[in-house]
Amino acid sequence: MANIFGDKWTFTSFGESHGAAVGGVLDGVPAGLHIDLNMIREELERRAGKGTKGQSTKYQGVSPRALREPDEVEWLSGVMESDEVTKDKGQRGLITLGTPIAFLIRNRDARPEDYEWLRHSYRPGHADKTYEQKYGIRDWRGGGRASARETAGRVVAGCIAKQALRLKGISIHAALIQVGAETDPAKFADTIAAYQKDGDSIGGIIECHISGVPAGTGEPIFNKLQAELAFAVMSINACKGFEYGTGFEGVTQPGSAINNISGGIAGGIADGTDIVFRCVFKPTPSTPKALVHCTSSRNTSGDQPVKVGRHDACVATRAVPVVEAMTALALVNLVLL
Amino acid sequence: MANIFGDKWTFTSFGESHGAAVGGVLDGVPAGLHIDLNMIREELERRAGKGTKGQSTKYQGVSPRALREPDEVEWLSGVMESDEVTKDKGQRGLITLGTPIAFLIRNRDARPEDYEWLRHSYRPGHADKTYEQKYGIRDWRGGGRASARETAGRVVAGCIAKQALRLKGISIHAALIQVGAETDPAKFADTIAAYQKDGDSIGGIIECHISGVPAGTGEPIFNKLQAELAFAVMSINACKGFEYGTGFEGVTQPGSAINNISGGIAGGIADGTDIVFRCVFKPTPSTPKALVHCTSSRNTSGDQPVKVGRHDACVATRAVPVVEAMTALALVNLVLL
Amino acid sequence: MANIFGDKWTFTSFGESHGAAVGGVLDGVPAGLHIDLNMIREELERRAGKGTKGQSTKYQGVSPRALREPDEVEWLSGVMESDEVTKDKGQRGLITLGTPIAFLIRNRDARPEDYEWLRHSYRPGHADKTYEQKYGIRDWRGGGRASARETAGRVVAGCIAKQALRLKGISIHAALIQVGAETDPAKFADTIAAYQKDGDSIGGIIECHISGVPAGTGEPIFNKLQAELAFAVMSINACKGFEYGTGFEGVTQPGSAINNISGGIAGGIADGTDIVFRCVFKPTPSTPKALVHCTSSRNTSGDQPVKVGRHDACVATRAVPVVEAMTALALVNLVLL
Amino acid sequence: MANIFGDKWTFTSFGESHGAAVGGVLDGVPAGLHIDLNMIREELERRAGKGTKGQSTKYQGVSPRALREPDEVEWLSGVMESDEVTKDKGQRGLITLGTPIAFLIRNRDARPEDYEWLRHSYRPGHADKTYEQKYGIRDWRGGGRASARETAGRVVAGCIAKQALRLKGISIHAALIQVGAETDPAKFADTIAAYQKDGDSIGGIIECHISGVPAGTGEPIFNKLQAELAFAVMSINACKGFEYGTGFEGVTQPGSAINNISGGIAGGIADGTDIVFRCVFKPTPSTPKALVHCTSSRNTSGDQPVKVGRHDACVATRAVPVVEAMTALALVNLVLL
Repeated sequence: MANIFGDKWTFTSFGESHGAAVGGVLDGVPAGLHIDLNMIREELERRAGKGTKGQSTKYQGVSPRALREPDEVEWLSGVMESDEVTKDKGQRGLITLGTPIAFLIRNRDARPEDYEWLRHSYRPGHADKTYEQKYGIRDWRGGGRASARETAGRVVAGCIAKQALRLKGISIHAALIQVGAETDPAKFADTIAAYQKDGDSIGGIIECHISGVPAGTGEPIFNKLQAELAFAVMSINACKGFEYGTGFEGVTQPGSAINNISGGIAGGIADGTDIVFRCVFKPTPSTPKALVHCTSSRNTSGDQPVKVGRHDACVATRAVPVVEAMTALALVNLVLL
Repeated sequence: MANIFGDKWTFTSFGESHGAAVGGVLDGVPAGLHIDLNMIREELERRAGKGTKGQSTKYQGVSPRALREPDEVEWLSGVMESDEVTKDKGQRGLITLGTPIAFLIRNRDARPEDYEWLRHSYRPGHADKTYEQKYGIRDWRGGGRASARETAGRVVAGCIAKQALRLKGISIHAALIQVGAETDPAKFADTIAAYQKDGDSIGGIIECHISGVPAGTGEPIFNKLQAELAFAVMSINACKGFEYGTGFEGVTQPGSAINNISGGIAGGIADGTDIVFRCVFKPTPSTPKALVHCTSSRNTSGDQPVKVGRHDACVATRAVPVVEAMTALALVNLVLL
Repeated sequence: MANIFGDKWTFTSFGESHGAAVGGVLDGVPAGLHIDLNMIREELERRAGKGTKGQSTKYQGVSPRALREPDEVEWLSGVMESDEVTKDKGQRGLITLGTPIAFLIRNRDARPEDYEWLRHSYRPGHADKTYEQKYGIRDWRGGGRASARETAGRVVAGCIAKQALRLKGISIHAALIQVGAETDPAKFADTIAAYQKDGDSIGGIIECHISGVPAGTGEPIFNKLQAELAFAVMSINACKGFEYGTGFEGVTQPGSAINNISGGIAGGIADGTDIVFRCVFKPTPSTPKALVHCTSSRNTSGDQPVKVGRHDACVATRAVPVVEAMTALALVNLVLL
Repeated sequence: MANIFGDKWTFTSFGESHGAAVGGVLDGVPAGLHIDLNMIREELERRAGKGTKGQSTKYQGVSPRALREPDEVEWLSGVMESDEVTKDKGQRGLITLGTPIAFLIRNRDARPEDYEWLRHSYRPGHADKTYEQKYGIRDWRGGGRASARETAGRVVAGCIAKQALRLKGISIHAALIQVGAETDPAKFADTIAAYQKDGDSIGGIIECHISGVPAGTGEPIFNKLQAELAFAVMSINACKGFEYGTGFEGVTQPGSAINNISGGIAGGIADGTDIVFRCVFKPTPSTPKALVHCTSSRNTSGDQPVKVGRHDACVATRAVPVVEAMTALALVNLVLL
């Protein structure tokens, strides 16, 4: 079930970046949950690279993708208009019915001609070649399912999960804590801008804090809480590592020094304190500076130069809401029902 | 399904450290597979902390648990005696029937009286308290399911998985690559011995190399190959992090420098080259030096001093075969059937 | 996972009869499969009660629902236009990409005002009351998910499954074999017409023949082939029973007489011969003649008379393609991959 | 997962009839449940064909298998001795720990020599041939996994499930309601004895009543309550059909007559009234009277005469506790957690 996440509150994802739409179906959402459409719109804008409000996202404004029109969610089933619309101007709401919630976001920006050069080429560091190895055919008109656009559906599903978790007193906050070697958030925007200007890219580390998870959540053997979180977060493109508690750096510290740093989990089970984990995102491999060549998929024409138009100097910035979304989808399967 | 791993080649684990036995049931193993009992015995000895042969395990000889009698596997179903027994002295073999393979290992070393002091105490850094939070009752006579003994069943199951994978040309080799700050394997035994003598403990990093995984293995969205591996490995006690490819250290390198380091996976799918991942294990928190106090579970008697008898100065050494076993169980679900 | 069928070739169903659309997502469909859109259109017409061609469906022409415009399938993802379009006039085709196939069918016929009387009433023999018991809220504007319209998505998914099975040499043919006490198919149309005229309804028995299932398909213990088929077919509205081989009537025959009638399955596993099963559908409970009263959901106004507009005198006729679809979805999970 | 039943309260079954043991592992059982060992012993005796007490089982006394020693359950994990032992003489009890409950029943009666004639033969109406088709090898020394002995594990697991259900006010009672054409229970024993004496066998119908299932239990689309029950019951050897509510006989009754007979389920969801279903069991095909020949598996020696020693004239009698067990295992996955 490669495109289904969760076994109780399942999210089925669909859609190619260059096809008609991306979207998904949520099954198992309880009836009567209020969906805040403003929150979904804001999260989709964070994912699209638009800074919204607050210090933590202002460096996201540099993304060249931010100029696009906002993604509009079309609801197909599982919800009806809320009678309890909030009073604030422009706010609308939906109420869940307990039946599957299907939604889609039309692709309005598909420009297959931009990708014509990829018809017979594999980009290094991308999934072009492995997709063809797996499926025999490959849709070269954009990244297809491997495109970051697929994460729009995750963000919508994650928003609904967050709203269900909030009713249980659980909140999730992720933030970029490192860009390259830089750990001062005040300098992240400048750091990224420098790489952007240089035609290069850089990685980042995201830290996620979860509060309110009831003690006892998680399972003691295979489905440990940390294993569920790692599985969720490692499914995000470009994520290369996951750690919690003392993590990798803890390797140099003796047991007598660190045994009270649990990261909120003991024996796979939440202990009721805040859960903290970190994950690392590699820089995007497709940059103007990367003077590597694509490998021809036809073995006839030799390597071809990479043509890079728009590029994100630090994809980790846009991964922040996706990390929150996947964390929410993992948790909602553990604490609800 | 907290004690079941895998959805095709499922491993159901059972057993408390102080109960009658630990063991498991493997379902989905194809008929006609030859099980090498010598290999299982050797892997169980690696897990128990006995050095067997070769440089990579000699530092394991320091474990005080190594003096025990070897674990004996009793086969309950799913196998029959092989007609094709190998010629070497002492070798026996079994053939699988295609039906569920159930096995058990009797606990001969249970000493509940050693744990009497834990009846009303929670050890720091252990799952004592979270188990009680989850289940309402706790079996204080040893670690119960949270004991490292539970991993004996994983090692047996993992050996059978490895043998099936070997027939597909897939091999898995894990090794300790760091102990504390030490990265020279020649010095690991001395480093660990120093912590042991000091009544303290230290963490370690294990690196795992997988060769022969067919290109195309893994799924592109949620069940990415790296997500499946992380889920498997993060289920091991004391594991605090997982990374592959450029990992956490790659955060400081620009995209123009690292885009050919894939770790054998692109877009969640194996590219046919060797897969390499690392995982970190924290030091055991129960050491003589750790002058911390247990928290009373009764709120009546105040904190109690930790009583530590046997202790492993570096549990990462014994985790090596468990990392291999969980990797094998993850892979066998992806490449077989 | 109440709205997901299958664990390898999964079908996620969504949509209320009175909402925007019904549809589904198929995950696990291999890349490169050709989808015959004409077949899908014909099967949707069978399901909608339109007789198409051939004797077996002519009695379906009596359904008052047959006058509607045909259902149009909109494809959202997972397919691209086939380069190998068949030569016949009007035929179009699609090729699968290996990614999730999402599709929807817009509801053009929603008339909530027809159901206004149901706002405070439960119909006998319908799921009105149990839905409210389960979810706390109920969408009274039509049957919601309990409507037969939900089966349109199953038929589309089943068509794709049938096309995959056909490539493996497997074919599925269901037919009505009994209507009330009548077992002569030549008389089914008249029998149904008589009930229709009388404002009443009648049940039917459908027999399904499956040929080409490879010997060895199915599992010996819990997931017996007959258990998988029963699970699939019993999920269809109004289906009250499933039997295969000697079935219920075989109870009166001694073992010495019947032991060669296997129904194509022995010990849960296909033996390579044709598989034959039967299932029974009850008459629709909402008929003009049914002088029963609805139960008020408000406990205030007393019972209300049932208002029946359109009614199907024999829903079993329209269930035939749904039985085939569910059989195909069950089998495709067992024989592919 | 062919040998695992359920997705929350999972039962993993293992064991061949002629191997060391049969048994199973229950995962997901909540901590603190009291296990009544006397009830388990009585249910195992019902399954073994021993009449215990009360009218409904007295005809079971005719089984020639009833002379064996009782099955003894050995508990490997997941339970500890109860402090609250009941006062009655000979009663013992166990308390569940929340961890996997593993148990086994040793096979003391294996007589492989009785089956030597089967080494190169397939019995008609048995799974001998399909097992060999599926697995390539077959364990001819008894029925292996296809033996009725496998159901002993189901009965133990079902007893624990029943005890959990009882705490929720849910009870399950199955009884034989028809043997051949006979529907008077007072005459079942004589009817069966006549077939036994004649060297023949006969089928039976079992009816199962479930009371106390909360309204709202079950799912509206694929996992309808009736589909889950059919899946559970159709997994029992020799079961050829399942029906509920009006069932197959209802086909001759018009909608105006039957619309209040729900069988306790509407739209896949329990309505809070008693649930009633029926299932049919075929006669055993291996009888002295059945002058059929086995098919040689070697294509060399021609057909061989069937050698039948012990035979059950009506296996439906012993299926009664198995029907209850599978019903309990299905329900416990739907109403608990």
